[in-house]
Amino acid sequence: MTSNTKILLKTKCEGLPKESDFEKIEEEIIEPKEGQIGCESLYLSLDPYLRGKINGRHISGAIFPGDLMAGEAISRVTTSADPAFKKGDLIISHSGWQSHPVININDASKIIDHGIPISTYLGILGMPGLTAYAGLLRLAEPEENDVVLVSAASGAVGSMVGQIAKIKNCHVVGIAGSDEKCSWVTDTTSIDECINYKKENITEKIKEYCPKGIDIYFDNVGAEILQVAMEQLAMNSRVVLCGLMAQYNSDSMPAGPNPAWIIKARAIVKGMVVYDHEDMRENFVDDVSKWIKEERIHYLEDITEGLANAPLAFSKLMRGFNTGKTIIKIND
Amino acid sequence: MTSNTKILLKTKCEGLPKESDFEKIEEEIIEPKEGQIGCESLYLSLDPYLRGKINGRHISGAIFPGDLMAGEAISRVTTSADPAFKKGDLIISHSGWQSHPVININDASKIIDHGIPISTYLGILGMPGLTAYAGLLRLAEPEENDVVLVSAASGAVGSMVGQIAKIKNCHVVGIAGSDEKCSWVTDTTSIDECINYKKENITEKIKEYCPKGIDIYFDNVGAEILQVAMEQLAMNSRVVLCGLMAQYNSDSMPAGPNPAWIIKARAIVKGMVVYDHEDMRENFVDDVSKWIKEERIHYLEDITEGLANAPLAFSKLMRGFNTGKTIIKIND
Repeated sequence: MTSNTKILLKTKCEGLPKESDFEKIEEEIIEPKEGQIGCESLYLSLDPYLRGKINGRHISGAIFPGDLMAGEAISRVTTSADPAFKKGDLIISHSGWQSHPVININDASKIIDHGIPISTYLGILGMPGLTAYAGLLRLAEPEENDVVLVSAASGAVGSMVGQIAKIKNCHVVGIAGSDEKCSWVTDTTSIDECINYKKENITEKIKEYCPKGIDIYFDNVGAEILQVAMEQLAMNSRVVLCGLMAQYNSDSMPAGPNPAWIIKARAIVKGMVVYDHEDMRENFVDDVSKWIKEERIHYLEDITEGLANAPLAFSKLMRGFNTGKTIIKIND
Repeated sequence: MTSNTKILLKTKCEGLPKESDFEKIEEEIIEPKEGQIGCESLYLSLDPYLRGKINGRHISGAIFPGDLMAGEAISRVTTSADPAFKKGDLIISHSGWQSHPVININDASKIIDHGIPISTYLGILGMPGLTAYAGLLRLAEPEENDVVLVSAASGAVGSMVGQIAKIKNCHVVGIAGSDEKCSWVTDTTSIDECINYKKENITEKIKEYCPKGIDIYFDNVGAEILQVAMEQLAMNSRVVLCGLMAQYNSDSMPAGPNPAWIIKARAIVKGMVVYDHEDMRENFVDDVSKWIKEERIHYLEDITEGLANAPLAFSKLMRGFNTGKTIIKIND
């Protein structure tokens, strides 16, 4: 008989996470009570912010050793104890790293079919996509011909920021961590240029690609890349601080850029948390599903089969060895 | 016969400025040509940003060894070669550290008498005052009951920020560098509390005075105080970056706060340069002169007599040994 496979955090990671920081257990599948649904997980999203939760430093709360690993997943309803859901419905929820979750219906959202593969609801049609959409359009307010720089440009958030900025007629430069990622950004998406920060001099390349400075910097990483980008802001530029990839693995908090750069550019710097922008979700899904069908937006998924492989895939993600949105395929 | 006394920068200061970094010379007084006015300087303003100019790091340009020291001054017209100005007019201009400047009329603004001592046109009715007025009201947008924290709270900018915030019904906490300064802030002005950052634990004191966090932080200093303040921002707070007192004396640029604090608070951080807000000057002078007459705004001047003493007064200012707006009285 099938059981509920769960992956727990075993130890508080030191530095980069490794497979031995996690533990797989099997439990009996439980029946939903009133107001709950029993599900089988199909796709699980792995995201860098989970490393911040392990550190106890993420806005959405901490994960402690012994806890089920957290994460957003797409599931199919198998048993419903609520009239609003029926067997076969597809839902999205923060059900974590488990194969057969029981979910409170208030924590589940039904997926409305837009004719796009459902795994994208974890990526460009999901939380990372909404992050990019709201962060760019609401916080950075791009205008035609703005010069937009975005870090982690092959990732789910970064690639969406860049492509939406292109749809809004901006000039877009990405930053990514390998030639393979940069090639995908420039060859497959509409983004104009991409800097390989591991091989190229970022300052020189920004000067070359953005000779009049940066109007919008969308930061997914923090640390050195943020500092270097801030030194080249144009007047009245806008900076969206969205991710901290460069420090999720670290126990300490690296410093930020000197305030002089912000003063000099009269920049406006805003902190971005996607949960504040749920009110944009409907417009977001409508716009993005249309843009995908029009082939104006491309996406890259890095899919690993099997929940048991989630720890390995997560440690690869935190080392930057993924290319595109990291997803675990649990069932069909 | 009287001569034009000028004080030049002699050497690029290393660290804190000292008297020997400057040189006094005497020159013949020259006659104004068409479109110019001959003046005698009455009051000269000494400001921390001048140290940034010596470093070549200020937005308004650099001062090099051999150059006349820059600075804003109030002067009386002695000889006019332009019909718009007559002998006896009082003007304000960036005429620098000299006793008898010749000024292009486009660089001079006439002072309109509001019945307030004219030295205040270098302080709370001048550039520092407009900085506070525009920075607080336009950039930080205070609302009633907002908790406002301001550094360098006994200085010209800081004390105005705090007092204007009180007029707008905010709760205001200042930070200053001596018991004497803190006493003036809490006893003479309307500001509620003041932290002596040299003696008290800033983090603990902010927690005590701002238990729900900071809604507006107006930063005049950068470095550690900025970092500590950012850690205690309330949700949707606003930070105005206005001054860099803590780094003007330094050849290197200290780091800024970690971006996580900005993200966590969904803060909006803005760079402030007063030159962008000239359009507010008329409202500013009307409001502030009224508030001074109503005794809702108090000010503190640190006046030294004699242009020859400007280097000493400047080195005191850059060590924080001034109390209030530093002004050199050159003539009556």
